[in-house]
Amino acid sequence: MRGLERHGIEAVAAFDRFFDRVPILPFDRHANIGLCGNPVPARAVRSPDRRPCPGDGPDAGDQQRSRLRRHPRPDHRELDAVTFRATILTLYPEMFPGPLGHSLAGRALREERWALETVQIRDFATDKHRSVDDTPAGGGAGMVLRADVLAAAVDSVADDRPVLAMTPRGRPLTQPRVRELAAGPGVTVLCGRFEGFDERLFDARGIEQVSIGDYILSGGEMGALVLLDACVRLLPGVMGAASSGVEESFESGLLEYPQYTRPAEWEGRTIPEVLRSGDHAKIAKWRHARACEDTRSRRPDLWERHEGVRVGRPLARGDD
Amino acid sequence: MRGLERHGIEAVAAFDRFFDRVPILPFDRHANIGLCGNPVPARAVRSPDRRPCPGDGPDAGDQQRSRLRRHPRPDHRELDAVTFRATILTLYPEMFPGPLGHSLAGRALREERWALETVQIRDFATDKHRSVDDTPAGGGAGMVLRADVLAAAVDSVADDRPVLAMTPRGRPLTQPRVRELAAGPGVTVLCGRFEGFDERLFDARGIEQVSIGDYILSGGEMGALVLLDACVRLLPGVMGAASSGVEESFESGLLEYPQYTRPAEWEGRTIPEVLRSGDHAKIAKWRHARACEDTRSRRPDLWERHEGVRVGRPLARGDD
Repeated sequence: MRGLERHGIEAVAAFDRFFDRVPILPFDRHANIGLCGNPVPARAVRSPDRRPCPGDGPDAGDQQRSRLRRHPRPDHRELDAVTFRATILTLYPEMFPGPLGHSLAGRALREERWALETVQIRDFATDKHRSVDDTPAGGGAGMVLRADVLAAAVDSVADDRPVLAMTPRGRPLTQPRVRELAAGPGVTVLCGRFEGFDERLFDARGIEQVSIGDYILSGGEMGALVLLDACVRLLPGVMGAASSGVEESFESGLLEYPQYTRPAEWEGRTIPEVLRSGDHAKIAKWRHARACEDTRSRRPDLWERHEGVRVGRPLARGDD
Repeated sequence: MRGLERHGIEAVAAFDRFFDRVPILPFDRHANIGLCGNPVPARAVRSPDRRPCPGDGPDAGDQQRSRLRRHPRPDHRELDAVTFRATILTLYPEMFPGPLGHSLAGRALREERWALETVQIRDFATDKHRSVDDTPAGGGAGMVLRADVLAAAVDSVADDRPVLAMTPRGRPLTQPRVRELAAGPGVTVLCGRFEGFDERLFDARGIEQVSIGDYILSGGEMGALVLLDACVRLLPGVMGAASSGVEESFESGLLEYPQYTRPAEWEGRTIPEVLRSGDHAKIAKWRHARACEDTRSRRPDLWERHEGVRVGRPLARGDD
């Protein structure tokens, strides 16, 4: 096994001092260069710790082949190449893969179901101080990331992948957009810092501005991690088949219904009787009613969209 | 410097095999025990790499003293004790501090402006398989986290801090809620996995369910990282004074106006003339108009709330 798990974060940070790009599993130096415009090796090397996974099967294999096709192989368990590649443009490459190096996403990274590289934005600065930012035009606090430096960084990885910038000014990330991205060739993600980006950058390079929520973070790196986690779990073979239906809660426009499990009684609280009835029709009806009730009380915005009703119409509890 | 930066992720994971709790900077073993109900040491040890920061000053010091007061000290630059403590209940303690070990949050952690510890949920399992989950009552895919095991984990850290569970069924995290949390003693955060938690847990322990956005993640850990990043940057002394006004964008109910910086012309694109006029009143007016325009076009939900208008009322471009 190559990479982070063995060398620790510090080794990657040290790497970073010597190379413009820090390829993280499963890019190797050549694959990494390939992403910047030169030919990509025909297929990724089979990882030595490649194990069969719950998601491995004819379906997962077929999906991967149908997207790549360049080197069809008889054994569907062989990955022809990584189909989802993420490139992160950041001032803090040492933050990656971070939490994505563990659990589902980390295993998928080692199994070469996706690839991750970081690009240090500062390497595209042109002055001797390697500055990437300057004071805001028109005055104000803080610093703004320069369009010329950022554009050079974006141009260095230009390919067919969408380029996203994480910013609270962006459109909110949604599960349908996550699904679209996960079905594509990957993403290039630009992480903001300070007071944000020079606005000219976005139009000039066709960059999609994305927000993960209505709160302010110290930088775009957290947003990039969230975006990648959401995408990676949808890649073929990453989740066991058993869990793959979860996200349908947001796609139906409702919150998920509440869940219960053993023990049947705990601290005097019992599992709702209907869930122990064995009557599947009644259970489904109860779950739908609870999903509606919780969406209405917790997320009037989602409920309104779901119902197509106007804000302010009084909704009596129980009229679903 | 103690901790992650030196030992790497692997060392922390190894630690985890031996201790129920992994205290991460600046908890020591005793401070950690203190959190569970025993006396907390009077004040945190002054970190050897403590450097003066932009936010250090009478204001930051006063704020810290006014919250603690137990051990007033003559030098306001000495931190009496960490005022914001985060405890993460998770099946993946090795994901922390992750990205929070770098940049602003990482420096603040080393400077003991906040504290982080992780609690392995699995250590509260009672059977020989150390199981934390079971199949959903009423049927369905996946596994549900048991209320009894999770409650035992929560009880082990019970104190005056609010307990939050990261779940897509929660109320959306907002900047005002982040501000409230950052002004308090800290947070205990419960990270879900699989199909979520047994619903009985929340009522039984008064747990606040929080969602960071309308997308599905592989677990609550990413949400916890986002929540902590948002809180930590607001702690006294963490950000330079220069940047502290940024978050007012969401609090005014509008997106931030677009930013520009040098070069004045780039690829034929110029900075809007008004920003180079030096007329501060005109600049402020232009920025407010652009904030309104972008909020209306990108975030009709925020705009509607800001204006108090009804959905569907046609808004002609330019009538702000």
